[in-house]
Amino acid sequence: MASYIRRHTVLCSPRRFERRGPASPLPRERLFAVFSSKGEDPEMEKINLTVALAGFNERWSPRTVASVNDYEVKLVKVCGEFIWHRHEQTDELFLVLQGELTIRLRDREIALGPGELCVVPRGVEHQPFAAEEAQVLLLEPRGTMNTGDR
Amino acid sequence: MASYIRRHTVLCSPRRFERRGPASPLPRERLFAVFSSKGEDPEMEKINLTVALAGFNERWSPRTVASVNDYEVKLVKVCGEFIWHRHEQTDELFLVLQGELTIRLRDREIALGPGELCVVPRGVEHQPFAAEEAQVLLLEPRGTMNTGDR
Repeated sequence: MASYIRRHTVLCSPRRFERRGPASPLPRERLFAVFSSKGEDPEMEKINLTVALAGFNERWSPRTVASVNDYEVKLVKVCGEFIWHRHEQTDELFLVLQGELTIRLRDREIALGPGELCVVPRGVEHQPFAAEEAQVLLLEPRGTMNTGDR
Repeated sequence: MASYIRRHTVLCSPRRFERRGPASPLPRERLFAVFSSKGEDPEMEKINLTVALAGFNERWSPRTVASVNDYEVKLVKVCGEFIWHRHEQTDELFLVLQGELTIRLRDREIALGPGELCVVPRGVEHQPFAAEEAQVLLLEPRGTMNTGDR
């Protein structure tokens, strides 16, 4: 079950920014999204989803790539089926970037392809499933566990 | 300036769902994202971004396509330059779906292509610009005006 535990790994390590010297008054956790040191590494100011996805292979292990206030945008690679779970306190957004993802609900399924999203409302039991690897963008409040109440 | 004012238009009108009879206990504003009446219109359970973008042509007029708790996912078509503005109370996420979008900051620019995102932190003055039409996904708290403090 360890691999099911959501990790809040930041793709662009804050340490890398520290070495270059933070010129920003922003809190450290936001540095990976907005790099304020002029001219040194302009590419760090944005997140390229393809590049970010190429940076890891582990499945069912979401990586945080950006924060919006107290919400996190995460990327995850999935294959097979996850456990049935629900989030009592929050909705959860799934946006498929590549592959096919099925959100199984107790009474139906929602099949998502690239460029398709759905929001599972809080309290609704669901089971993500992908016959082959799918790459998915997630959005949810910081600290949300991907296993919900399990 | 009227066209600059953010509109909270829901692409899939709640009225359409009312006619079919809401079988869901969900609040109305969430029905466009999760349609719970079995079998009637399964496609309404998900949002296809390409289809949603094809549903409007107006520029600088974001359409809300999904809600995640008190946050909204919006689609917007942009061309030319917006006004300089800032959001004192919230970060704002830009994810380019098609075309090229430049986020002008006072001391630099962030050029975004398809599949690239950036988060403009609260309080940071910025001006979105696109030489040709770009299609962009936005994420921000419900009620955020796209003109910020203007």
